[in-house]
Amino acid sequence: MGRKVYLEDLPKEEAYGRFMDYLRGTGALEPCRAETVPVEEALGRVTAGPVYARFSSPHYNASGVDGVAVRSRDTYGASEASPVHLAVGEQAQIVDTGDPLPPGYDAVIMIEDVHWAGEGVLEIIEAVPPRQHVRVVGEDFVAADMLLPAGHTVRPVDIGALITGGVEEVAVRARPRVALLPTGTELVEMADTGGSLKPGDIIESNSRMLAAMVREWGGEPLRYPITPDDPQRLKEVVARAAGEADIVVVGSGSSAGREDYTSAVIGELGRVLVHGVAIRPGKPVILGEVAGRPAVGVPGYPVSAWLCAELFLRPLVYAKLGVSPPKRHKTEAVLSRKIVTPIGVEEFVRVVLGRVGGKVIATPVSRGAGVLTSLVRSDGILRVPRQAEGFHAGQEVRVELFRSLSEIEETTVIAGSHDISLDVMASFLRRSFPGASLSSAHVGSLGGLAALLRGEAHCAGVHLLDEETGEYNIPYVKRLLKGRQNVLVNLAYREQGLMVAPGNPKGIRGLEDLAREDVVFVNRQRGAGTRVYLDYALRRLGIDPGAVRGYECEEYTHTAVAAAVAAGLADAGLGIRAAARALGLDFVGVAWERYDLCVPAEYWDTPQVQRLLEVMADPAFRQEVEALGGYDTKDCGRVMHRG
Amino acid sequence: MGRKVYLEDLPKEEAYGRFMDYLRGTGALEPCRAETVPVEEALGRVTAGPVYARFSSPHYNASGVDGVAVRSRDTYGASEASPVHLAVGEQAQIVDTGDPLPPGYDAVIMIEDVHWAGEGVLEIIEAVPPRQHVRVVGEDFVAADMLLPAGHTVRPVDIGALITGGVEEVAVRARPRVALLPTGTELVEMADTGGSLKPGDIIESNSRMLAAMVREWGGEPLRYPITPDDPQRLKEVVARAAGEADIVVVGSGSSAGREDYTSAVIGELGRVLVHGVAIRPGKPVILGEVAGRPAVGVPGYPVSAWLCAELFLRPLVYAKLGVSPPKRHKTEAVLSRKIVTPIGVEEFVRVVLGRVGGKVIATPVSRGAGVLTSLVRSDGILRVPRQAEGFHAGQEVRVELFRSLSEIEETTVIAGSHDISLDVMASFLRRSFPGASLSSAHVGSLGGLAALLRGEAHCAGVHLLDEETGEYNIPYVKRLLKGRQNVLVNLAYREQGLMVAPGNPKGIRGLEDLAREDVVFVNRQRGAGTRVYLDYALRRLGIDPGAVRGYECEEYTHTAVAAAVAAGLADAGLGIRAAARALGLDFVGVAWERYDLCVPAEYWDTPQVQRLLEVMADPAFRQEVEALGGYDTKDCGRVMHRG
Repeated sequence: MGRKVYLEDLPKEEAYGRFMDYLRGTGALEPCRAETVPVEEALGRVTAGPVYARFSSPHYNASGVDGVAVRSRDTYGASEASPVHLAVGEQAQIVDTGDPLPPGYDAVIMIEDVHWAGEGVLEIIEAVPPRQHVRVVGEDFVAADMLLPAGHTVRPVDIGALITGGVEEVAVRARPRVALLPTGTELVEMADTGGSLKPGDIIESNSRMLAAMVREWGGEPLRYPITPDDPQRLKEVVARAAGEADIVVVGSGSSAGREDYTSAVIGELGRVLVHGVAIRPGKPVILGEVAGRPAVGVPGYPVSAWLCAELFLRPLVYAKLGVSPPKRHKTEAVLSRKIVTPIGVEEFVRVVLGRVGGKVIATPVSRGAGVLTSLVRSDGILRVPRQAEGFHAGQEVRVELFRSLSEIEETTVIAGSHDISLDVMASFLRRSFPGASLSSAHVGSLGGLAALLRGEAHCAGVHLLDEETGEYNIPYVKRLLKGRQNVLVNLAYREQGLMVAPGNPKGIRGLEDLAREDVVFVNRQRGAGTRVYLDYALRRLGIDPGAVRGYECEEYTHTAVAAAVAAGLADAGLGIRAAARALGLDFVGVAWERYDLCVPAEYWDTPQVQRLLEVMADPAFRQEVEALGGYDTKDCGRVMHRG
Repeated sequence: MGRKVYLEDLPKEEAYGRFMDYLRGTGALEPCRAETVPVEEALGRVTAGPVYARFSSPHYNASGVDGVAVRSRDTYGASEASPVHLAVGEQAQIVDTGDPLPPGYDAVIMIEDVHWAGEGVLEIIEAVPPRQHVRVVGEDFVAADMLLPAGHTVRPVDIGALITGGVEEVAVRARPRVALLPTGTELVEMADTGGSLKPGDIIESNSRMLAAMVREWGGEPLRYPITPDDPQRLKEVVARAAGEADIVVVGSGSSAGREDYTSAVIGELGRVLVHGVAIRPGKPVILGEVAGRPAVGVPGYPVSAWLCAELFLRPLVYAKLGVSPPKRHKTEAVLSRKIVTPIGVEEFVRVVLGRVGGKVIATPVSRGAGVLTSLVRSDGILRVPRQAEGFHAGQEVRVELFRSLSEIEETTVIAGSHDISLDVMASFLRRSFPGASLSSAHVGSLGGLAALLRGEAHCAGVHLLDEETGEYNIPYVKRLLKGRQNVLVNLAYREQGLMVAPGNPKGIRGLEDLAREDVVFVNRQRGAGTRVYLDYALRRLGIDPGAVRGYECEEYTHTAVAAAVAAGLADAGLGIRAAARALGLDFVGVAWERYDLCVPAEYWDTPQVQRLLEVMADPAFRQEVEALGGYDTKDCGRVMHRG
C-alpha cells in the first residue's frame, strides 16, 4: 500500500454530515435490539419502548395520614356551638398512613387534629370535606398510564415508579458493542512493561481510555490485543471486529505516515468516507464503514483520540441506543489569555476556570495533542470556530463544562510563578476542604501581578528581586499595583540554581559558565521571576545574554526546563532544587529567594484565600514542602507586607 | 413502646448540623478503608491518596510528527539563495510520529514541508530551530509528578494518564456499604404480587429506588428483606445491619403513627439525634446513630424518601468516600404559577422547565409526597425558604437542574387543557426527534390562553365552546388574545361524556341526571374547557349548579375525574371517552368537541412547534390516538384559523 501524504481538511459539520447520512442510508445507525432486564437492574439503561403501569397508584383509596377515617356526610353542620360526636368503631375508624379506607368512608382527620370527647368518642366542630386526606385510587397514576416513554434513560426515581406500578421487567436497548483495536508496532501492553521502558516504546493507553468513555455512555467496550503495523494482520482483525461488534474503532495509525494502514484497510474492507477533518487536535481522523458497521480511525495522540471519540464515536453509541447524546452544561467566561488559531481550523482549547470577583475566568492550558494532563486538569473546553483567528484576552467566551459551576466557585485561582509546592498545596487543600480546589496558571511572577490588575486571580505567586534595594517582591507590588491594597504572605524561601546532567559532565560551577562556548542553556520566559533574576545576575557578572547559547529558548515551568536538561537538549537551566531532584539532575546552588503570595485586600477574607492560609499553617504541609528539597518554610504563612 | 404524637420541627440546617457534628465527633464519618484496583477498573472510583507517575511522558525525546530528523546546527545559515543539502542516513533520518530522535538529533521537519533536492537529499532553505516538532522528555509530565490528587473521582482521561504514567493499580476508597431496611406489615415484595394486589398492600419500592441512588453515588447498597411492624424483630435487624454496613437506612415507619417503631428502636440501640425536620415533603425523617454507624429513618412516601435521601443520606455516602457531594447545575427561571407554602416549612417543589422566547419558564407539578410521577416528570427542584410564604407567578426563581439547560431548550411547552393524546404526542416526538420533549401544564383551556398572553408556552391546548355562536375556540382566541397573531391548528375531535361506574349502577343517561339527589358528581376546575361546556349545558337544561351534589369538588385532569369515579367516591364525572376507557369505566356520550392547539405566530416557525406539526402529519400518530377511543383525527394538523 502506498504512502498517502496529504489528508483532507473537511469542516467538521460537513464530515459529520457525510458520515452520518451515509450510515443512516445503509441502516447502520438503527438502534440495537431490545433485551429484557429486571427493573432493579435497569439503572442507566435506555428504554426500548414506552413502559405502562400494570396497577394504579394507589390501587385503593388510602388514608394519606395517620388519623381517624369518617364519613363526611356524618359531619355536615358540625360547629363549636353544636359539635357532632362520632363513636370509634361505629362512625369512625382509626387508620394509619396507607391503610385502605373502610367501605363507605370518604375522609380522614389527622391524628393531631382530633378532639376526643371521651374514651373512643370524637368531637367534631367543623364539617369534614369529602376526600380530605384521602389518596384516591390513581392519585399518582392509573393502570395503563405510560410511566416512561421510549428512549428514556432509567434513573432511581423511575425504578421506584415502575415497581410501584407493578412493572418487574423492562425492555431496554442492548448495550452497543464497540470494538477497540489498538494498532502500532511501537505499542506495549501495560502489563508487559515491567520496571522499565525502551526508547520508542509507548504504553498502550488510548483503548483503555476509550473503553471507559464507551462504558460511561452506556456501551460495551470490546478491547482487542495490539495489532502491529502489518496491513494483512490489521485487515484480518478489522474484519473480525466488524463481525463481532456494532461499531469498530481502530486506534492510532490514522495519519498519513509510513505505517498508517488504517485508511487503506477500511477502504479495502468497506468504504472510507472522510480522512482528515479541519479540527485541532484530531485532524487525521478516519470515518468509514466496514461490513455495515460504522468504523472510526482514531489518531494516536491521546487528546486527539479523546476529542475524536467525543465528536464522532459518542453520537454513534447514542444512536445505537436510540437517543441523542446528553448535552454538556455551558457557561460564559472571560478569557484571561489570548488564543491564536489558524483560520480554517476549528480548535478545541482546554481551559481551567475559576470565579474571581463576579466573573468566571477561563485560562487556556497546554494545547499539545500529546499533553493528556491538559485534559485531566481542565474544567471545560472552548471551541474556536473555523472562521476565527482566535480570541483576545478579556473576550467573553462560551465554555462547555466538565464539572458544575458551583464546584468551580470553590476553586482558588492562583496566577504567577510556577512552584512545585503548589501541587502539595492543592493536595492538602482538597484533603482539608472537600470540594475546594486550586487552579494555577503558570504565567510568571510579572504575569501574576498583571492578572491581579485585571481581576483574574485571587492571588499571585511572586519571587521578584528588586535590583536597587535587593529586596524581594514588595517594591514590585508597590510599583505595579499602585493605589491598591494588597497583602504579601510568604509561602517559602527556595533555592535557585543551575540544573545540570547527573555527574555535571560539563563541570558547570556557576552562572559565569553560561558564557562558555560548549554550554547550551535553556531559559525561562520573559516575566518569570527566575528570568528576572538571571538577567540581573548576568548584568552583575558583565555577561552579554547574546553570549549565552540557548538564551532565546524559553520554557514556562521549572519542570520543563529540568526536562530539557534531562533530555540532553541543554546542558544547564536555572530553576529550583526540587525540579532538579524530581528529574534526577544535579544541582549547582546559586541563591536563595523569597516566594510570596500577593493577595488583593478585597479577597483576603474570601474562603478561597482563607483556606490557603489554613493549609500554610499546617505543620504537615510545611514538612511535605521541605521534603521536596531546597525549601525553607520558616516564614510560611507570615504576612511580609500589607498596604 | 408508646405512641409519640408530635414530631420536632427543626430547621434543616440545624438538623443537619446536629447530625453531622455528632457523627464527626464519634469518628463515624471517617472515610472507608482504601482498596487497590487495576487502573482499567477504577472508573468512577475515588482515589484514596495522591497518585504519582512512575514514568515520564514522553520518556524519551520523540518526534512529534511524521518527517525527517535533523541536527539544527547543520541548518544554520540556510536560505533560498544558499540552500543547505542534507543526505538522508548521514545528516537526516526519516522518522514517524512517536519515534525516538536518533542520538545527537534535535529537530524534525514535517514530511509535508520537506523539499527533496534529489533521491535521498533534502534541500533546506531556512534554519530549523532546535526542538522543532520534538516532544521533549516530560512534555506531558515527569516521573514522580502527581497525576491525581487524593479524593479525585476517576474519569476516562485519568485512566489514560495513569496508564501512560506506568500506573497499573490505584488505591481507591472501598464503596460505602449502605444497609437498606424496608419495614412495614403492609409491604409486599414485588416478586410476590402475582397478578393482583389486595387493598392495603403496597409493593415495596423505596429500597430499590434508594439502592439505585446509593449506586449512583458510588456506594454499595445492601437490601434486607421486609421487616414487619414488630419492634423486637426490627431491633434485631437494625443491630445486625449496623454490624454489616457503614450506614443504616430504615425505610418507612418514621412518622409517629401506631406502628412507627423506628425511632424507638434506634433510640434503644444507639441515639436519636433528630426526629422531625421542617421540610416538606420529608418531615418525619429520623437522624441518629447505632453502634457507631450513621442511621437514617426515611419516611414511607416515595417523594419524601427520595428527598430525605438526597438531603441526609447523600452527604453521608460522599463523606465515607472522602469527598464532598457534587453540586447540581442551577438555572434562573420565571415561575408560571404561584406557590403558596406555610411559613416555617422549607418546601421542595418539583418543576418542569422550558425555554419560551428568551425566558426559562418553571411550572410547578403536583406537590403530593405520594406522587412519585411528579419527580419522574420534573426537570428540576425549587426550594421555598422557611421564612417565605411562597413565590408569586412571574417571580424569578433559582432551580436545581435534573438535566441540562441545552436539553430543556429542546422542549416544547404546551399549556392548557389536559388531553391523553398529548402523551402519545410526547412519545412520537421523542421517537422522531431524539433530544426533543414535550412538557404539558394542565391548567385548563382558559389557563392555556392566559399562559400564551404571559409568554409562558409555545402553544395552548383548547376546547372552548362559544355559547353565542356555537363555534369552538376561534371566538375565544380573538377575544382573549386580541391584537396578537395566532394560528389554530386542530389536534382532534373528541367525545365528551359522563364517566360512570362499570354497569352504570345508577342508570345515568345524561347531564339531566346530575340534579338527582342520589348522584354524586365530580367536577373539573374553573377555566377548564370541560367545565365551560358543563356550565353552558347546565344552563341550557335549566339546572342550578347548586343542585348538583359534588359540583364544588374539582379535579384538574380527565384521569383524576375518572379515578374518583373508579374509586367509588363519585357516581359521575364529565370527561373524555379515552379516560373512562383507561380506567375501565362505562361512558355515556354527551357531545363531540373540537380540540385545537393555539400557536402564537411568532413561535410557528420554531423547531419546538414545527416538530409537533410533523408528528401530527404522521398517520401512525393519528392511528394511535384514535385507538385510545373517542377521538376523530380527520382534521389533525389542519389550520382552522389564522389571525
